Amino acid sequence: MTGFSSGCREFEKLSQIPDLSSFGIREGISEVIVSTGFESPNAAPIGIITKGGKPFVRLFKGSHTWANVAKERYLASNVVYDPLLFVRSTFFDLEPSEFEYVPAGGFKFPVLKEAIAWVVFECVNVKNTDQALIADLVPVEAGFNEGHRKDLPVLNRGFNAVLEATVHATRYQLSGDEKYLELIRHYETLASKCGGDGEKKAMKLLYEVLGI
Amino acid sequence: MTGFSSGCREFEKLSQIPDLSSFGIREGISEVIVSTGFESPNAAPIGIITKGGKPFVRLFKGSHTWANVAKERYLASNVVYDPLLFVRSTFFDLEPSEFEYVPAGGFKFPVLKEAIAWVVFECVNVKNTDQALIADLVPVEAGFNEGHRKDLPVLNRGFNAVLEATVHATRYQLSGDEKYLELIRHYETLASKCGGDGEKKAMKLLYEVLGI
Repeated sequence: MTGFSSGCREFEKLSQIPDLSSFGIREGISEVIVSTGFESPNAAPIGIITKGGKPFVRLFKGSHTWANVAKERYLASNVVYDPLLFVRSTFFDLEPSEFEYVPAGGFKFPVLKEAIAWVVFECVNVKNTDQALIADLVPVEAGFNEGHRKDLPVLNRGFNAVLEATVHATRYQLSGDEKYLELIRHYETLASKCGGDGEKKAMKLLYEVLGI
Repeated sequence: MTGFSSGCREFEKLSQIPDLSSFGIREGISEVIVSTGFESPNAAPIGIITKGGKPFVRLFKGSHTWANVAKERYLASNVVYDPLLFVRSTFFDLEPSEFEYVPAGGFKFPVLKEAIAWVVFECVNVKNTDQALIADLVPVEAGFNEGHRKDLPVLNRGFNAVLEATVHATRYQLSGDEKYLELIRHYETLASKCGGDGEKKAMKLLYEVLGI
């Protein structure tokens, strides 16, 4: 939080709102990895919801992402196509060396080195409910990592299955409901059948985390 | 088939095999739209299977794609991120105006104007079984449509749900098994919740096709 008092909030916003679709945020729910935390960077998969061109998030209480945003009011979306990184960032802390700091207004904000594109957002109109924090997102800065753009994302049902399994795994951890295990096993079959090495490693890790 | 006799087969192959992952074909099953047919272009979603770096396809008998490949021994993979185009090309013939012809060796081959990247493959070691044609794929030519690369693909569970629903819809049409309808309804909920306009239009069309 060094150098991030309320007086520092008047940094320059982007003179023009970037076309968010060029940076991986589009109408509907865009599944990205959100990085937060000026001092102690953290990353976790979050769906950024866009309705009528306006992006917002719903962050469930208790997570690192929620704690950082509640305190600092900033987050960055990171477009990532690596299935293992989705699983790792869901269940573990990433290494500090996996982040880099990008200039965003008057300060530096952590984004993922693996990101193909990132957008730093200020969180405004913050509302707290019993279960979650809801905030509108105002883009402050956006960028690409050109070195990662050469590999064209591939549509792979196995990759999609890893995403679904990860969502259901977090629900299983919260509720203990066995129906989620059935879904996870269904998606493991799909990841194994359609995925490449990345998908298989990701599902292996997810099974280890769940102890199944 | 004009100008495509066996004598024309000696056109130059790519001097170097392109890095297929840059063109959207990777280990595992890459879901692309395959275009075929020198004279009468056709397009349909196909999973290109890559094992140990070697791509191949399994084409079920009776489809246009199967008929064209059985006769002409060429196909092109088209990387497309438009959910409606996946559904349209599954159930309908695309308009001739939706194709463009790219030079591939000594001839011109149809690819989709909407493709972000395409690869024209020769189909070799063709094996016919009772149900399918199986062929190894040798890349002949590959290209990008730079104009379409600016929009970064977004991970969207709704988009993935449209893909899954389309797979299950074709199985439902073949088998009439009601279990596929249940899966399709599950994915419709996901597409509606997480998708943007494209996903919603795609699912609407899919429901119309199935008459549900």
